[in-house]
Amino acid sequence: MAAIKVHGLAFSTAAMRVLAVLHEKDLEFELVPVNMATGEHKKEPFLSLNMLSSKQHINALLPVYLQPFGQIPAFEDGDLKMFESRAITQYLAHTYKDRGTELLFAEPKKMAEMSVWQEVEAQKYDPVAAKLCFQLFYKRMLGMGEPDEALAEELQVSLGKVLDVYEARLAGSKYMSGDHFGLADLHHLPTVNCLMGTPAKAVFEARPNVSRWVADILARPAWAKVLAMQNSS
Amino acid sequence: MAAIKVHGLAFSTAAMRVLAVLHEKDLEFELVPVNMATGEHKKEPFLSLNMLSSKQHINALLPVYLQPFGQIPAFEDGDLKMFESRAITQYLAHTYKDRGTELLFAEPKKMAEMSVWQEVEAQKYDPVAAKLCFQLFYKRMLGMGEPDEALAEELQVSLGKVLDVYEARLAGSKYMSGDHFGLADLHHLPTVNCLMGTPAKAVFEARPNVSRWVADILARPAWAKVLAMQNSS
Repeated sequence: MAAIKVHGLAFSTAAMRVLAVLHEKDLEFELVPVNMATGEHKKEPFLSLNMLSSKQHINALLPVYLQPFGQIPAFEDGDLKMFESRAITQYLAHTYKDRGTELLFAEPKKMAEMSVWQEVEAQKYDPVAAKLCFQLFYKRMLGMGEPDEALAEELQVSLGKVLDVYEARLAGSKYMSGDHFGLADLHHLPTVNCLMGTPAKAVFEARPNVSRWVADILARPAWAKVLAMQNSS
Repeated sequence: MAAIKVHGLAFSTAAMRVLAVLHEKDLEFELVPVNMATGEHKKEPFLSLNMLSSKQHINALLPVYLQPFGQIPAFEDGDLKMFESRAITQYLAHTYKDRGTELLFAEPKKMAEMSVWQEVEAQKYDPVAAKLCFQLFYKRMLGMGEPDEALAEELQVSLGKVLDVYEARLAGSKYMSGDHFGLADLHHLPTVNCLMGTPAKAVFEARPNVSRWVADILARPAWAKVLAMQNSS
């Protein structure tokens, strides 16, 4: 039995963020599927799918001791239990620093620079991109109806404004993280991959530096391994 | 001239997060006021106040080289330029580790635990709390009209659900961060302080462990210094 366990689903954007780090680090782990169905979520120790109305993420049912908000993924490394995908990726990048791909920067100022763009991903990009993924991809996939076209249009305009800032950043830097691939790039992978399969692809393609960056990060072998897990699950 | 500069306003919740760390660390710094007014924001190098429609934060006008999203605060430490308040607080906590209050944990598992609650603050608590601060406090202060009572009520219900998880966490832990005050606690200070002066106070007071924690963190001498800056600005 692997020491590292990810409780989640291979098509959840938050879980994919963790899976991408595990593959970049070439770590052994077990993906433990989570029961997304039924009215079980009304009964303790399970929590509601939609406990927090402000988020439209794909949530799931997990025991409270693993994830008090009832969202995926939850994570175990031996006796350490964690949730929140970006906290887990940081833990893995620091703890397994010397394995596989280096996702951090040794120089403190370069690390500070990357951490700015990690926050931008979480605070500016993801709130727009995750809602757009839901409208243009997950909604149909989950049988929740057709996209709200007006909302999708509005979200694409907002996404374009964020990507204007990215275009400027990427004019002077090979990666969002800095001069090598890092956590700030990796955190974008699940939503970028999702949106590139939707009409929102055009918002990325209208910006040459963003397009170059998207092609680069989507071509990583570790990312191909994450996508392969979706096909086999 | 101080090496550390914060471009912002002492009543901005994001700027206060940075100011609180600077006072905890007993660091010398300069608060550089930002021009919030006028149509200047239509002209480069200034960016729009409301470039991103998904956020209702109090934004301001900053040169693009400091803050490409046009939000406050922006930060300088010598030749290092940063934005995003939580990236700045992390930089300060790591770089000035040996000064003033220790806001991190030396033990990796304790650090991983705190980072989970840092993410919870940013991803679950703040999206609700910041909107509630806007409705119940900043909207009137900025002459933007009366609170939307229905929305404020809905937000208080969402806040209560987040604070239910906090109540359970704080039943087994003195602080959200762990066994001592840390960044995960500190990041809450500006919005907790704001909401305790509004009817949303009741949502905190209904939960005994949360109330104990709120009283503890608001009583910190460094926080009193941040509030004193508001009175003198």
